[in-house]
Amino acid sequence: MMRFEALTVFPEMFEPYLSTSIMGRARSRGVFSFEAHDLRCWTHDRHHTVDDAPFGGGQGMLMKCEPFFEAIRDLSERGEERPHVVFFSPCGRRYDQAAARRLSQMRRVLLVCARYEGVDERALELADEVISMGDYVLTGGELAALAVIDSCVRLLPGALGDEMSAWDESFSEGLLEYAQYTRPADFEGRCVPEVLLSGNHAAIAAWRRRSAVERTARWRPDLLEKVELSEDELTLVKRVKEQGEGD
Amino acid sequence: MMRFEALTVFPEMFEPYLSTSIMGRARSRGVFSFEAHDLRCWTHDRHHTVDDAPFGGGQGMLMKCEPFFEAIRDLSERGEERPHVVFFSPCGRRYDQAAARRLSQMRRVLLVCARYEGVDERALELADEVISMGDYVLTGGELAALAVIDSCVRLLPGALGDEMSAWDESFSEGLLEYAQYTRPADFEGRCVPEVLLSGNHAAIAAWRRRSAVERTARWRPDLLEKVELSEDELTLVKRVKEQGEGD
Repeated sequence: MMRFEALTVFPEMFEPYLSTSIMGRARSRGVFSFEAHDLRCWTHDRHHTVDDAPFGGGQGMLMKCEPFFEAIRDLSERGEERPHVVFFSPCGRRYDQAAARRLSQMRRVLLVCARYEGVDERALELADEVISMGDYVLTGGELAALAVIDSCVRLLPGALGDEMSAWDESFSEGLLEYAQYTRPADFEGRCVPEVLLSGNHAAIAAWRRRSAVERTARWRPDLLEKVELSEDELTLVKRVKEQGEGD
Repeated sequence: MMRFEALTVFPEMFEPYLSTSIMGRARSRGVFSFEAHDLRCWTHDRHHTVDDAPFGGGQGMLMKCEPFFEAIRDLSERGEERPHVVFFSPCGRRYDQAAARRLSQMRRVLLVCARYEGVDERALELADEVISMGDYVLTGGELAALAVIDSCVRLLPGALGDEMSAWDESFSEGLLEYAQYTRPADFEGRCVPEVLLSGNHAAIAAWRRRSAVERTARWRPDLLEKVELSEDELTLVKRVKEQGEGD
């Protein structure tokens, strides 16, 4: 069973999300386990202080490195194997579906949730991996940790019903998902493309591939660099690009 | 007061996060308000069905467009002004700190939480804006919505204590944050750079700028394209680049 742990000053933030819906069901079926550790357990003063003013001055408080060293050393000695230790920082590698696949192969992952900008630099030495969720600032790493857990757990065998398992393929082909439709076929005059109602599987597959290429060309042309395209698809990409320039 | 709303099949997922820590305090001080709406309230069958099989076949279920149309039309008529409607999709614009600043200027934002890959395409017509949190797949949009709320709220006046307000500057200079340190000055032989203990404010400012440039050159050279650098800084960037190639 895959084991996630979090090191945080807000251990209570995780339980509600990880007890609900797909995460809750996967957890109760034993697909993964989770435990949040309170960083303040590794402090030694009466106030359980985890932060202090930065050297050199400046506004804001910084998280001290000592509780992280103590906690991670301590947690590493517990259990059968050392955890893979993840810190979150804008300096890290951008999180993506390939990273989710890689992490979901691990047996024990410890997600260290600090304030995004406020950790004593020396603590980063403890990281096996530094992840960035994007170029924005959150009050803490807890939502980032939940996103990592969610994206990994849904890749684990047994997490999703069989019917949903194919959904992971969107980024693995390197393209955005094709446009999808469900009933009604006509909603206030907005009609589903006829080919999807035809029952012609080859035509549907061709339409979907074309839709995926077109959407990727329009919204995420950067992704196309790594995708092999046919002559026809290259022409389509060129046309989408020309339309974009005409807008 | 800024107002956030969410449209979701899991309205209970928001309250724990938004009642805790900085978000909870900002909310109880009236910096922002939040309400989650259950999408199933806008269904008309006994089972409150929000999904259906995709036209053209394929695994997985798709969220139907009708409840979204009904809900968003209905919610738009409530309140003094129409909400700015945000959908989440990998097709959307990558969320970043500039987007957080822009959204935090709005008065009413409605965050539509569907399964990332599973919405009838026609529903996207309702979006004023489509946001992508990154190239990874989550089970639903709820964590994305919480990340948007968190990143916006902390920019609102009164959300953070004055002492923390300067922390928003990390991405506004276009560089990663400089390395930061707090006590102890020597942790098991890991020493804080001496200049930070010197009290020489000009030297500290110069060291920090240099640290920010160096870290950005090492980890996020893409950010440097938009930053004006001095001659000395360009030399530093070149050296970091050469070191990286030598690794």
